[in-house]
Amino acid sequence: MVDIAVISGSKSDQLIVDRILGRLKDEGVSFEHRVLSAHRNPKELEGYVSGTDAHVFIAVAGLSAALPGVIASQTHRPVIGVPVSAKLGGLDSLLSIVQMPPGVPVACVGIDNGENAALLAIRILESGR
Amino acid sequence: MVDIAVISGSKSDQLIVDRILGRLKDEGVSFEHRVLSAHRNPKELEGYVSGTDAHVFIAVAGLSAALPGVIASQTHRPVIGVPVSAKLGGLDSLLSIVQMPPGVPVACVGIDNGENAALLAIRILESGR
Amino acid sequence: MVDIAVISGSKSDQLIVDRILGRLKDEGVSFEHRVLSAHRNPKELEGYVSGTDAHVFIAVAGLSAALPGVIASQTHRPVIGVPVSAKLGGLDSLLSIVQMPPGVPVACVGIDNGENAALLAIRILESGR
Amino acid sequence: MVDIAVISGSKSDQLIVDRILGRLKDEGVSFEHRVLSAHRNPKELEGYVSGTDAHVFIAVAGLSAALPGVIASQTHRPVIGVPVSAKLGGLDSLLSIVQMPPGVPVACVGIDNGENAALLAIRILESGR
Amino acid sequence: MVDIAVISGSKSDQLIVDRILGRLKDEGVSFEHRVLSAHRNPKELEGYVSGTDAHVFIAVAGLSAALPGVIASQTHRPVIGVPVSAKLGGLDSLLSIVQMPPGVPVACVGIDNGENAALLAIRILESGR
Amino acid sequence: MVDIAVISGSKSDQLIVDRILGRLKDEGVSFEHRVLSAHRNPKELEGYVSGTDAHVFIAVAGLSAALPGVIASQTHRPVIGVPVSAKLGGLDSLLSIVQMPPGVPVACVGIDNGENAALLAIRILESGR
Amino acid sequence: MVDIAVISGSKSDQLIVDRILGRLKDEGVSFEHRVLSAHRNPKELEGYVSGTDAHVFIAVAGLSAALPGVIASQTHRPVIGVPVSAKLGGLDSLLSIVQMPPGVPVACVGIDNGENAALLAIRILESGR
Amino acid sequence: MVDIAVISGSKSDQLIVDRILGRLKDEGVSFEHRVLSAHRNPKELEGYVSGTDAHVFIAVAGLSAALPGVIASQTHRPVIGVPVSAKLGGLDSLLSIVQMPPGVPVACVGIDNGENAALLAIRILESGR
Repeated sequence: MVDIAVISGSKSDQLIVDRILGRLKDEGVSFEHRVLSAHRNPKELEGYVSGTDAHVFIAVAGLSAALPGVIASQTHRPVIGVPVSAKLGGLDSLLSIVQMPPGVPVACVGIDNGENAALLAIRILESGR
Repeated sequence: MVDIAVISGSKSDQLIVDRILGRLKDEGVSFEHRVLSAHRNPKELEGYVSGTDAHVFIAVAGLSAALPGVIASQTHRPVIGVPVSAKLGGLDSLLSIVQMPPGVPVACVGIDNGENAALLAIRILESGR
Repeated sequence: MVDIAVISGSKSDQLIVDRILGRLKDEGVSFEHRVLSAHRNPKELEGYVSGTDAHVFIAVAGLSAALPGVIASQTHRPVIGVPVSAKLGGLDSLLSIVQMPPGVPVACVGIDNGENAALLAIRILESGR
Repeated sequence: MVDIAVISGSKSDQLIVDRILGRLKDEGVSFEHRVLSAHRNPKELEGYVSGTDAHVFIAVAGLSAALPGVIASQTHRPVIGVPVSAKLGGLDSLLSIVQMPPGVPVACVGIDNGENAALLAIRILESGR
Repeated sequence: MVDIAVISGSKSDQLIVDRILGRLKDEGVSFEHRVLSAHRNPKELEGYVSGTDAHVFIAVAGLSAALPGVIASQTHRPVIGVPVSAKLGGLDSLLSIVQMPPGVPVACVGIDNGENAALLAIRILESGR
Repeated sequence: MVDIAVISGSKSDQLIVDRILGRLKDEGVSFEHRVLSAHRNPKELEGYVSGTDAHVFIAVAGLSAALPGVIASQTHRPVIGVPVSAKLGGLDSLLSIVQMPPGVPVACVGIDNGENAALLAIRILESGR
Repeated sequence: MVDIAVISGSKSDQLIVDRILGRLKDEGVSFEHRVLSAHRNPKELEGYVSGTDAHVFIAVAGLSAALPGVIASQTHRPVIGVPVSAKLGGLDSLLSIVQMPPGVPVACVGIDNGENAALLAIRILESGR
Repeated sequence: MVDIAVISGSKSDQLIVDRILGRLKDEGVSFEHRVLSAHRNPKELEGYVSGTDAHVFIAVAGLSAALPGVIASQTHRPVIGVPVSAKLGGLDSLLSIVQMPPGVPVACVGIDNGENAALLAIRILESGR
């Protein structure tokens, strides 16, 4: 049993992931982390998402960041997306994450803002009915 | 007792608010709606936020949309921000809502995307520990 | 046996789809069209992509347009992405489609430019080894 | 009694603050400086704004820079906002500061342009009826 | 003797000017309005700016909006700039007005936001030493 | 006989070209590379394009990157464009390459993304009728 | 013998062309107009550019507007580029025209600003050594 | 008697100016250079512009770059504007220079592209009637 599942799309996002994990550890919630790309590991991603009992997902991705939206289409749990600045200052990943079509919601936080992703996940954990 | 509190910054956001409320009603969760500006009604806003027992907040705002962030600084509940396209196609409100400083998280959805705000709120309601 | 598979993410993209299909018909290549969202119909999408013998895919999508990239991760055929202007003049879908991570290529054409998607598909059909 | 109150949202804005303070000192006007975040110290901020007799406020903030607008909603004095470039070259803070809703005016100067904030404050000081 | 001088760069800005003048009239401050382009009427502009005893200037301009900056270089009074959306949603005039070089400050308000220009001018009028 | 022709507009694009050539070599397809500017070597460019029997073209260019479009107007083979980030984070070259007028298609990949250009070219090679 | 050659890339640019021609007629300079696309009529374009004795070229184009740059590579006369707003408010054509590589200069005027193209051409006509 | 007058708005633009002067020297045309700000030295600027017999002006400026437009309003000679990247990658100065109102034309070249300014000036010198 784990509270929060953190998934990053590439090893190059590790710096942002470390801030998330550090903050979650400080706050005393349980978590696990996987590196799984929506494009390169779709099967492993789907298997992991459907198999975990995490309450909240945090997805970290740069460029045309499909990861948070793909996870949101595979679970009914809340999914937090963290855009990473790889090109164009992160505007590409921000728009890719936040502009989801109606029906598949993603909770986007600021560019490279791992800390807020962790804090938002904890707020969600503590706010269910 | 109410599940979700929807707050919009101005009457001009009503079209987006209606989509949120309609969707929440369809899903059978309880909610209430207030029009309270972070800039023009700060006291009423603070009073309402501290007094409600809502589990999740949805804040709708255009232009330099401070409303979601201000609410997030007044509660420990999750706050969902909905940017409204009034100028620049909504880029101003999107950046104002999503680029929160570390420590005060807001869950941003897409521009004018009231439906996803409602759906994200319901996911959060159902996902607490 | 079909030459080109055209997939759109939503019925609201039909105007762009019609231009693609019209042009393909004019050029005398065979094609079929499906409305399948990467987020709302992931299983049907995967089934269709793996089952068709089309040589080239054309994927039409707006907002955070994950469709072309998801298809490209499910096939080794060339995938052409057509960004649709729904918000921000189409900048969101353009960046979502074109800024793919290394390893999963998508061939992006201009915003709402269905005609060029059709013409590019035909060039590809006629240029294999 | 002080002429100008300079408030910055974070210690990371200190470089811009130093340019403001240096210029104010050169010009021989009295001032004081506080680090108070609209999101993290709302009570202290409100107490300071309502308690000071400063004629003009200068608010320095990056990202989704709500500080100038929040101050402007708490005082009838002129408020000058200085956007700081933390992400996206400062476009986020610029739009957050300048695109205020009708009714709560903020005087925005250029990105990182502390000198002009100081000079504008002095012009205002010397121009009342 | 007049409190506020409103200058617009072109007759096409009249809609924004009307909102400014209406608000100033409501607030009971005295004002006058001129249509003077920084590019097409530089001499008349300079003559008017140096001759008026207005306490505050409001300059309204679209496109590459040089008017507020030019006025600010001709007076030591505060100058408020109002960007008008003629092309690119007003981003061109916003950047032209707000990104002034150090030494010549302009107080920029939001795109097409005549009301806030009027309100800011009144705050300035009432806040001198 | 060569599979793929790689053309770059300037020697300053060599870093991106090297990634393309390296990847093509790894994949075992034949290729050749020329440095030919659409603006500075139009005759040599036209001569090379009309003379080669390459199946696919990859064109690498920064700034107002006309090279891919000009090649596409000189051949009926597929042309892949790679925008290079020289100014504005590469937004200028991205828009110059992707926003082709109807009738002359270019397959655009991500900014500086030479690897995907190579992979897309290989997909095309293997997908003709 | 003609003073100014006006070339537009598409019939859809005619509204802007009409403003140019109207202004040139008013000013009493001689001119001729051709519709020639850099991508669809490269041979006719080159023939026309090399054959005319016009002193100045005005090139009107939207989207990835290669026309002005291609003309500038075929003549040593000054070339004025007029970006047309077809998509993204004209930002695509503006960047395509203005961001020319060193060595092939184009004189860019504002988006859809045919009048300034005409006036700039006349200034050039009257300013040679 | 001088062919080309180069005016820069600030000493911080010197790197771009040096490229212009170097290229003009190589090409054997006569020139002179002044550092004159439209905002800080309006009188000296106007005196210099009206007094010189230069055929062409090159104006170099960053931020809200009013210099080229102001010069164009003071002379009937062609004025070339060179945007300098100081903030936002130079997008602010590009839009400030290129988006001139109808009636006062400026010939804009690419961001930081001093070489093309020099080459365009030479083309103009050699192309009068």
